[in-house]
Amino acid sequence: QCNLTGWWENDLGSRMHVFAVDGQGNFSGQYHTAVSSAQKPIEPSPLVGSQHLDEDGQCTFGFTDNWNKFSDSTAVFAGQCFARDGGEEVLQTSWLLREKVDSLLSDWKATR
Amino acid sequence: QCNLTGWWENDLGSRMHVFAVDGQGNFSGQYHTAVSSAQKPIEPSPLVGSQHLDEDGQCTFGFTDNWNKFSDSTAVFAGQCFARDGGEEVLQTSWLLREKVDSLLSDWKATR
Amino acid sequence: QCNLTGWWENDLGSRMHVFAVDGQGNFSGQYHTAVSSAQKPIEPSPLVGSQHLDEDGQCTFGFTDNWNKFSDSTAVFAGQCFARDGGEEVLQTSWLLREKVDSLLSDWKATR
Amino acid sequence: QCNLTGWWENDLGSRMHVFAVDGQGNFSGQYHTAVSSAQKPIEPSPLVGSQHLDEDGQCTFGFTDNWNKFSDSTAVFAGQCFARDGGEEVLQTSWLLREKVDSLLSDWKATR
Repeated sequence: QCNLTGWWENDLGSRMHVFAVDGQGNFSGQYHTAVSSAQKPIEPSPLVGSQHLDEDGQCTFGFTDNWNKFSDSTAVFAGQCFARDGGEEVLQTSWLLREKVDSLLSDWKATR
Repeated sequence: QCNLTGWWENDLGSRMHVFAVDGQGNFSGQYHTAVSSAQKPIEPSPLVGSQHLDEDGQCTFGFTDNWNKFSDSTAVFAGQCFARDGGEEVLQTSWLLREKVDSLLSDWKATR
Repeated sequence: QCNLTGWWENDLGSRMHVFAVDGQGNFSGQYHTAVSSAQKPIEPSPLVGSQHLDEDGQCTFGFTDNWNKFSDSTAVFAGQCFARDGGEEVLQTSWLLREKVDSLLSDWKATR
Repeated sequence: QCNLTGWWENDLGSRMHVFAVDGQGNFSGQYHTAVSSAQKPIEPSPLVGSQHLDEDGQCTFGFTDNWNKFSDSTAVFAGQCFARDGGEEVLQTSWLLREKVDSLLSDWKATR
C-alpha cells in the first residue's frame, strides 16, 4: 500500500519530504528542488497534495509546490506509485511549471 | 489582490468551490467536474492547493483534484489569476489528468 | 472531408498557410506566428506535417514549425479537424515549443 | 553537427528510421513504435519532420508520426540533440499523442 509519507528523490536530484498523510489522503510537505528557472537562490518550499488510498499500492496522487520562498511560480505534479521487483517503491510523475506573466497576452508561454 | 476563495466555472461547465485561503496561501475545496473519462457517475470531489499572495492580484496557483469518489484518477491544475478590463477576475489554467495504469509498462499513456 | 489545404487562423492571431496535401496526407506550408519568445523579429517560417484522410472529415493531424528564420526553436502541433454546425471547419490543437538549451542539465526546462 | 539521418531507439524500445535530411532540414522516415493504445496490431508508420542545422550539433527538431497503418491517431515529437561525453548522440524529446474523438465535446481528453 503506497503511502507517500517520507523522503523521495528524483532523477534531477530534487528531494521531497512528505509529512503524514491523513485519512482522506491529504498531505503537506517540503520540496527541495535541484533546478530552478528563477533568479534568486533556491530554498525549500512548501507543498500540499492528495493521494488515493487504494489497497493495491498503485495509487495516483498529485501535489502543488508553491515556490514563494524565492519566486512567483507554482508547479504541480501528477503521478502514480509503483512497486519494482524487489519491493522498492517508485513514483512516476509528470509536471507543469507555471511562471508568472505580465498579462493575458503572454499566457501562451507561461507554462512549461 | 486575487484570492481564489469562492466559486469558479470553466469553459467546459466544470465548477470549483474554493473554501477559505489561509495565511500561507493554502486552500481546500470541492470540484464539480462536467466531464469525466471514468465509468461511474460524476460526483463532487475534494481539492487541495496553494496560491501566491502577491499584491498585484496576478498570483500563480496550483491545486490537486482527487477523484476518489468515482474513479482512481487524480488531476492537477496550474494557473494564474488575471483581471480583465472592468475588473472581472479570470483564471488561466493548464492541467494534467493522471489515470491509474496496471504497471510501469503502461506508464507512457497514463497522463493526458 | 477535412483537408488542411488553405489558410487557418488561431485565437492568438497566428496564421498558417498549408500548401497542397498529397495522396499520403503529407503537406508543407508556412506559419506566420503572432507570438514569439525569441529576441529577433518574427518571420514566416516553414512547416511540414501529415494528416489522416478519413472520409468523415474529423481527421487527426500533426505538423512541425521550424523557426529557423529567427530562432533556434521548433514547435510541434497535434490536433483534429471538426465541423461546427453550419459547416465551418475548426482545428483543435495542442502544441509543444522546444527551445534550445545549453546542455542536458537544462533539458527539464526546454519545453513549454 | 547533429544530423538525424539513421536509426534511433528510445527507452520504451520504439525505433525510428530517419531517411536523408535535405538542405532545409526536412526529412521523412519510418517509426516502429513499441507501444500503442490502438486495437489493431502495430505496424511501421510514416513520419515527416524538420530539424535545425546549427553548427554546434545541438539542434532542435520536431516530427509527426501518422499512425494511419493501424489507427486514426497522430503523434508529434519535439526535441533536441545532445552529445554525451564520449561523443554518443542522444535525442531528448517530448511528445503529444492525439487520438480521434467523436465531437468537440470530447476534445478535452483527446491528447495525451
